[in-house]
Amino acid sequence: MTMAFAFIGTGPPCLCRCPQLLHRSAASLAAGRGSSACSATSKRLGYAAAAPRAAAATAEKAKAARGPKPGSDKDKRITPKSTDFSRWYLDVVRDAEMADYGPVRGTMVIRPYGYALWENVQGYLDRKFKELGVQNAYFPQLIPYSFLQKEADHVEGFAPELALVTKGGGKDLEEPLVVRPTSETIVNHMLAQWIQSYRDLPLLLNQWANVHRWELRTRPFIRTLEFLWQEGHTAHATAEEARAMARQMVDVYAEFACNAAAMPVIAGRKSRIESFAGANITYTIEAMMGDRRALQAGTSHDLGDNFARAFGTQFLNEAGDLVHPQQSSWGASTRLIGGIIMTHGDDAGLRLPPRLAPVQVVIVPILKKNTDTEAVLKAADDLAMAASSAGIRAKVDAGTEKTPGFKFSFWEMKGVPVRIEVGPRDVEQGTCVAARRDRPGKEGKQFGVPLETQGFVAAVQKLLDDVQEGLLADATAFRDANIVDVASYDELRSAIEEGKWARGPWAGSDEDEKTVKEETTATLRCIPFDQPASVGPCFLTGTPAEEVAIFAKAY
Amino acid sequence: MTMAFAFIGTGPPCLCRCPQLLHRSAASLAAGRGSSACSATSKRLGYAAAAPRAAAATAEKAKAARGPKPGSDKDKRITPKSTDFSRWYLDVVRDAEMADYGPVRGTMVIRPYGYALWENVQGYLDRKFKELGVQNAYFPQLIPYSFLQKEADHVEGFAPELALVTKGGGKDLEEPLVVRPTSETIVNHMLAQWIQSYRDLPLLLNQWANVHRWELRTRPFIRTLEFLWQEGHTAHATAEEARAMARQMVDVYAEFACNAAAMPVIAGRKSRIESFAGANITYTIEAMMGDRRALQAGTSHDLGDNFARAFGTQFLNEAGDLVHPQQSSWGASTRLIGGIIMTHGDDAGLRLPPRLAPVQVVIVPILKKNTDTEAVLKAADDLAMAASSAGIRAKVDAGTEKTPGFKFSFWEMKGVPVRIEVGPRDVEQGTCVAARRDRPGKEGKQFGVPLETQGFVAAVQKLLDDVQEGLLADATAFRDANIVDVASYDELRSAIEEGKWARGPWAGSDEDEKTVKEETTATLRCIPFDQPASVGPCFLTGTPAEEVAIFAKAY
Repeated sequence: MTMAFAFIGTGPPCLCRCPQLLHRSAASLAAGRGSSACSATSKRLGYAAAAPRAAAATAEKAKAARGPKPGSDKDKRITPKSTDFSRWYLDVVRDAEMADYGPVRGTMVIRPYGYALWENVQGYLDRKFKELGVQNAYFPQLIPYSFLQKEADHVEGFAPELALVTKGGGKDLEEPLVVRPTSETIVNHMLAQWIQSYRDLPLLLNQWANVHRWELRTRPFIRTLEFLWQEGHTAHATAEEARAMARQMVDVYAEFACNAAAMPVIAGRKSRIESFAGANITYTIEAMMGDRRALQAGTSHDLGDNFARAFGTQFLNEAGDLVHPQQSSWGASTRLIGGIIMTHGDDAGLRLPPRLAPVQVVIVPILKKNTDTEAVLKAADDLAMAASSAGIRAKVDAGTEKTPGFKFSFWEMKGVPVRIEVGPRDVEQGTCVAARRDRPGKEGKQFGVPLETQGFVAAVQKLLDDVQEGLLADATAFRDANIVDVASYDELRSAIEEGKWARGPWAGSDEDEKTVKEETTATLRCIPFDQPASVGPCFLTGTPAEEVAIFAKAY
Repeated sequence: MTMAFAFIGTGPPCLCRCPQLLHRSAASLAAGRGSSACSATSKRLGYAAAAPRAAAATAEKAKAARGPKPGSDKDKRITPKSTDFSRWYLDVVRDAEMADYGPVRGTMVIRPYGYALWENVQGYLDRKFKELGVQNAYFPQLIPYSFLQKEADHVEGFAPELALVTKGGGKDLEEPLVVRPTSETIVNHMLAQWIQSYRDLPLLLNQWANVHRWELRTRPFIRTLEFLWQEGHTAHATAEEARAMARQMVDVYAEFACNAAAMPVIAGRKSRIESFAGANITYTIEAMMGDRRALQAGTSHDLGDNFARAFGTQFLNEAGDLVHPQQSSWGASTRLIGGIIMTHGDDAGLRLPPRLAPVQVVIVPILKKNTDTEAVLKAADDLAMAASSAGIRAKVDAGTEKTPGFKFSFWEMKGVPVRIEVGPRDVEQGTCVAARRDRPGKEGKQFGVPLETQGFVAAVQKLLDDVQEGLLADATAFRDANIVDVASYDELRSAIEEGKWARGPWAGSDEDEKTVKEETTATLRCIPFDQPASVGPCFLTGTPAEEVAIFAKAY
């Protein structure tokens, strides 16, 4: 190990390598001091032309390698949210080093900082799934095209966005193979062999995998040709069980969104038109982004026996009858990362919920000439070690080439929930200063935080909880201020024109729903589980309605 | 949670769902009792025809659903290793429910029990990587064909086994896209944009991903069209660092193989012929399977600047010169699962190393008529809870439809390291019986193990350590007894004919190496890092040799 670190230590580590430092043994934290030049400089080059000609690159590299001058970070301010939300999002994705564009149109590279966030999302959800008795497995990615054709709605829904493998090992394939867009078909092909008796049920499976959907308009994390997700597939003896499972899993997604991602969501049922191709019912969680557009952040489907019939999946029930199992499927993807960025981010960059943040607290030693810098650096490392031993993901930014101001904005861009500043005087006084990412300037500062381990850890843990709550409170207030209850089509039109969500009594037909979409570009996001005591007549048709539905412009 | 379990509890759980129970809260362990009929019956059907006609299936399902009669497990004994190792392997993969065949030739479904083992392999390696400062990321799976052509050796090596996507979104693509066989090319395409200055180095990346190689002869886990792996990709300022990294990672693989998988391996250097397409040097770990054939279980490559040159990846070094970074790449895959099966398995099934086993200890209550079965069941659950709280992966098999004998052989097939038997008299005496999977019959039994928590946990932990050591000792003895030191080609021939490995002084050319392969079917597995003090003349050419090399038949 020591050898290892001695070796890794060669050359100052890049500041963007948070996971690296997160996982370093306490003993090696001291070695973590380094320059952040690479992050600072490579940021602007991240989206350079796919293959820059060496010549052209040279000058830029020469400039880059000199490292930015003090304050040079000013010239790469990101687009303000209010000016252009879409450009703001792409700026943040790039400057926070979350992702980069792949060489194939619409593909994305998930960079280490973005992937570390995804690993925390995975960890949270995977634990929940396993607590519910779901087992992970892995199904082949290449699916015979004929499988998709077995379920009519399914193939109709997915055919337009399939990637096809037609050659393998230098030969043309007899049948084209579909690059998995989702796995209901191949899962059922296997279940038909595995499920024989009611004793084999329920069968609760999940896989973490990559899927491809040939989308035309793409956006990092939100809609890409390839994305990472988990897809759950379950089989049950009765329709009630399958529906209960589908409902239970959308609740799991809602709980994750609210408690881990601090994303308040509205959970509900999709309309027929918006349901999954092949499902009887689709449940969804809908989140409001910073531009007030809706993001479908996770879905769960009651598949009934649609796929079981298509694939001849049958079992003998307790009565001895041969029947089809009832199924559910459910998925959440790297789209959640985009949702977290667009829910919490501000003009300074990311704001990450502490429960998912790759770095929960960054410690910036304030080094001044003619002072005991060693004492300050030691204090910083001691705080990082104290936090790490308490299970807090901590990091020291001790580089000497950047000003504290530069570091502050760098870590604000990265959305680290809590920043600790410790300088020579602080060390003398045995205290340090804490700053919350979710509260700008003085308001978010806390002075006199003790350097003493117990007191420091307690203070940081409290701050992390406060930031988690603060982000959820901000997002919830914003959402609630932007949902309008409408009683008429005119009210809906104006709400949508104002960029808000409209919630109103709905008894319209599929055709009515399409009309609203054509005329307002708003779609029926969901019929919320949470319904008012009494519901008036349908805002569109005026006929008696039993439920309210939410309409909004969506990603 | 309670709701969840109440729901999951519907119908007796299938015994093959070990991970499910492993992750259940202690409180719910009591609910884990169920029948294993489904496992027993589905096992033989696992490899049934891809799409059984419902009619034909019905009779079989009817038979299956009746559940096996007592002792019916006798009629599905697996092929003895000694009779046909290859059939034995396929029988174990099927009966232990590790994997099943996918619909596309050469593809494989990793079933929950096999995947749980893979998750433990991932967990161990991922921790090591992160301790060394390696960060996870994700690169797109679809790579422009032209990328592979940029590195001459690379494309020559991989072209014959590529899967190509030629259609996307219903249209023919202008350029075919390669379904990732490995990612050096696309990684370098991105590094060319990310790496500007020596300050950006070292850059240590890894990804957990699926890859495709269009193999002709396939075997579950060992060689499949699609497999899961991790691929590390690093960039360094100097050739020495890159080589040290490549060497360090093969050491990580060797440490994992020995300490976690109890697979003694020989680590060394590949010959030019056997090296990775595009590498300067390839390091490998070679393991001896139960049939004494060699399995390459992990490789690490010193890529020099071959890919950096091909992709124009350059950086300004401290001297201000624009130079190419030096790189390494390294990978280990689900092939490790096959290696674990073929290293440790016996005629009763799997024998899993405790450090990786999904279930470390299975507790079988012995229920007798006219005795206090509730007391026995409670004792079993208490033991499982005690073990779980001590971090031991424990499971209770309390089903009433199977005889203890049936359960014993079922869990032996699954390779669970330690079995606990507890009956009415044991409960009276406050003790239970423990059985080691690695020592058959009486020899492996330990009586009088206390039911009292501390004593029980201590005893089980000791047994798990003993089994881990025992498996490694068995495999090491077997390996060492089957490596022959040879001084002449005749000695090598006869060693290979006996199915053994041959180790001898080697100074042959690439042509000589090919000759040996053609004449003996044995390949040069590696030039071990561990070399004898003095080396005689080359066993083939008689010319002075500096190193010994190992030749063997391999998978």
